[in-house]
Amino acid sequence: VTRAHVVIVGAGFGGISAARALRGANADVLVVDRRNYHLFQPLLYQVASGLLDPSEIAQPVRTLLRHQRNADVRMNEVRAIDLERRVVRTDAGDLPYDHLIVAAGAVTNHFGNRDIAAHTLALKGLNDALTLRGEVLERFERAAECADERERRRLLTFVIAGAGPTGVEFAGALCELFSHLLPKDFPRLDFAPVRVILIEGRNRVLEAFRPRLAAKAEEVLRRRGVEMVFGRRVVGADERGIRLDDGTRIESATVIWTAGVRASWLGEQLTEKVGRLGRVAVRPTLQLAGHDEVQVIGDMAELGDRGEVLPMLAPVAIQQGEHAGRNVIAQLGGGAATPFRYRDKGTMATVGRNHAVVQLGPIRLSGFIGWLMWLFVHLLYIITFRSKAVVLLNWAWNYIFYDRPARLITEISPDIGTDTSNEEATR
Amino acid sequence: VTRAHVVIVGAGFGGISAARALRGANADVLVVDRRNYHLFQPLLYQVASGLLDPSEIAQPVRTLLRHQRNADVRMNEVRAIDLERRVVRTDAGDLPYDHLIVAAGAVTNHFGNRDIAAHTLALKGLNDALTLRGEVLERFERAAECADERERRRLLTFVIAGAGPTGVEFAGALCELFSHLLPKDFPRLDFAPVRVILIEGRNRVLEAFRPRLAAKAEEVLRRRGVEMVFGRRVVGADERGIRLDDGTRIESATVIWTAGVRASWLGEQLTEKVGRLGRVAVRPTLQLAGHDEVQVIGDMAELGDRGEVLPMLAPVAIQQGEHAGRNVIAQLGGGAATPFRYRDKGTMATVGRNHAVVQLGPIRLSGFIGWLMWLFVHLLYIITFRSKAVVLLNWAWNYIFYDRPARLITEISPDIGTDTSNEEATR
Repeated sequence: VTRAHVVIVGAGFGGISAARALRGANADVLVVDRRNYHLFQPLLYQVASGLLDPSEIAQPVRTLLRHQRNADVRMNEVRAIDLERRVVRTDAGDLPYDHLIVAAGAVTNHFGNRDIAAHTLALKGLNDALTLRGEVLERFERAAECADERERRRLLTFVIAGAGPTGVEFAGALCELFSHLLPKDFPRLDFAPVRVILIEGRNRVLEAFRPRLAAKAEEVLRRRGVEMVFGRRVVGADERGIRLDDGTRIESATVIWTAGVRASWLGEQLTEKVGRLGRVAVRPTLQLAGHDEVQVIGDMAELGDRGEVLPMLAPVAIQQGEHAGRNVIAQLGGGAATPFRYRDKGTMATVGRNHAVVQLGPIRLSGFIGWLMWLFVHLLYIITFRSKAVVLLNWAWNYIFYDRPARLITEISPDIGTDTSNEEATR
Repeated sequence: VTRAHVVIVGAGFGGISAARALRGANADVLVVDRRNYHLFQPLLYQVASGLLDPSEIAQPVRTLLRHQRNADVRMNEVRAIDLERRVVRTDAGDLPYDHLIVAAGAVTNHFGNRDIAAHTLALKGLNDALTLRGEVLERFERAAECADERERRRLLTFVIAGAGPTGVEFAGALCELFSHLLPKDFPRLDFAPVRVILIEGRNRVLEAFRPRLAAKAEEVLRRRGVEMVFGRRVVGADERGIRLDDGTRIESATVIWTAGVRASWLGEQLTEKVGRLGRVAVRPTLQLAGHDEVQVIGDMAELGDRGEVLPMLAPVAIQQGEHAGRNVIAQLGGGAATPFRYRDKGTMATVGRNHAVVQLGPIRLSGFIGWLMWLFVHLLYIITFRSKAVVLLNWAWNYIFYDRPARLITEISPDIGTDTSNEEATR
């Protein structure tokens, strides 16, 4: 009797939790990812702002699955999925499967605007974060030697497009960096022209939060020096700056694009017609229509829950991963997959130094208490014990000394995970 | 009265120690480096072998000089030096000087062999180390999916050319990684074909050490599984492997070149005829002949001491930096530069897990005691307190759990600091 082959595409929150749910299964589990690491995305902005190092929020997939005897890992790029032959095609050959769990996540979405793709920086992968860190620090180096006042202003203007959690958290972190730390490194530079501008198409920050909590966050951001522009979208970008939909031009040397994500382009291998933001419609069991052996989870899956489509969030992916694993175990035992139900455990976001907004069912917290809660939950979910220890150490260090450890400009090539390359590859 | 301008080219051991020696000087000190960080090179191989993270052995130059009021920093590439006009030309304009200290260090030396430059990996800059770390880990990923036995052998053969301190220390670190840690990450891979081959043109390792200590180091390396080939040089390299001067071919997917360094190409701006390994001959005072206002220090300087040319080592650069600073202070006060005398404080090298060879004047140590000594001295010289704490923490972690924290494959573009690019730029 040959054991069943379960292939999991993607080693993000969904893929890893699916693999772990299959720990006791009588099957060979193979996790495929083009990276060798699992990334704790919620803290990515802290790498970009120089507070944490890559190895503190990313762990090798192999290390995470080291103690799971039935699991193996391949670092390969998935090129295609052949649903008829039940084969995943990679850059290093084919992987046949009896059960497939697709958890390839999401990529930055420039909504087809090539100017925006070319002239803005993303904040989605580890290489994005390292590039962004280097670029931000480099602007201050250039400003320090720049004699032209107008150019210096442009160099010191930082635009963040999109006021979701990533945009808001990064804006807060940037302000902290600019107000507490960099003035010590650049004692001769005038920091008055430094601007952090947050641009959002809706009329407030943090759409996923209640208006009152969002208003709190806005208040804190404003106090820390973030300028906010609501009801406006970035529609153009070039070497010198950006253009808004009302015609306003903002001269800026650094534009960070957090205004959209879309599901991985791999979705187009699974269905003839992808849904909104490239997601793949799945049945309530997470299974693909017509393919009981294929489940799609996390950011890639389009699934309604009490009348609303589930958001692209880590907790959804984690819970769906667990569920998908259980479904496979049920199917291996001759049973059937069961419908997925999402348990909303709440949302939270930090807004710079010791302030966070937290929404947990009926509980709403903000300020320092919220921040402690945020800290506790994030530490809890960081996967390895060592990372928990080192991240806490770095946070404490920064809290006490206002000093971020990781302010190095290393040379990084652009992340191949952004949708620009995928668009080119797929289109 | 205008204050004197002192320009220091390079923020390595020599440049930083010169800047610090000028702390009390009545002069404006400007440190120029194309990187924004100072690198603690002796621990670079620990980044390459995944034990330390970049921010633990590198600190922003600005942070290091933050409390020195008369010092400023520029992150620029020095293009040329105009000795007549007393101007340093950079990619962002000219920097005039009254006193110049040139401390641009050394680059990897492929002795003009373009095949070797193209098909080997260097270990000189931070980006080299990150690239090397990614490449080594990637070989195991490829081997894990490779069905062809001969190709798997090639993927698992690691050649290190040059058995100086860098080659020896990296060989030891690789063996530790391959024997204790990676087998846990790759439980299905047969580790029997894994080879680490150290190739040295002389007839022993660690030329700078006494023969008896070197023999000890060889014994430890051999016990840990390093194969050593003496009296042979690598003369050719291609996609599949290397060729030695006796015609032997070794099939290897990863060749690390630590067989030579040479002084920065900037030396050619200072003299019509550079010396051995591109170094610039200086007077005993470190001054350039005919230019009392220019000093050359560290790896770039060719200076005899008791009949021998001083080696390219961190302690030499540090002491020369201090001396160059004092010379400038003397000159500013109307005095003259004094001759430099090197105080040899000894040499040490680790040979993998808790074993080091140490040579301090009449004292010779090896084994665990040597390793404690090595550990103490290196911690002492690591510049910031935070780095000391984190490095010690990581060492302790690895010592207890046999676990290296930093095993991520991130995408890094080739380091522009290697001599290939400089050769192309200069020639």
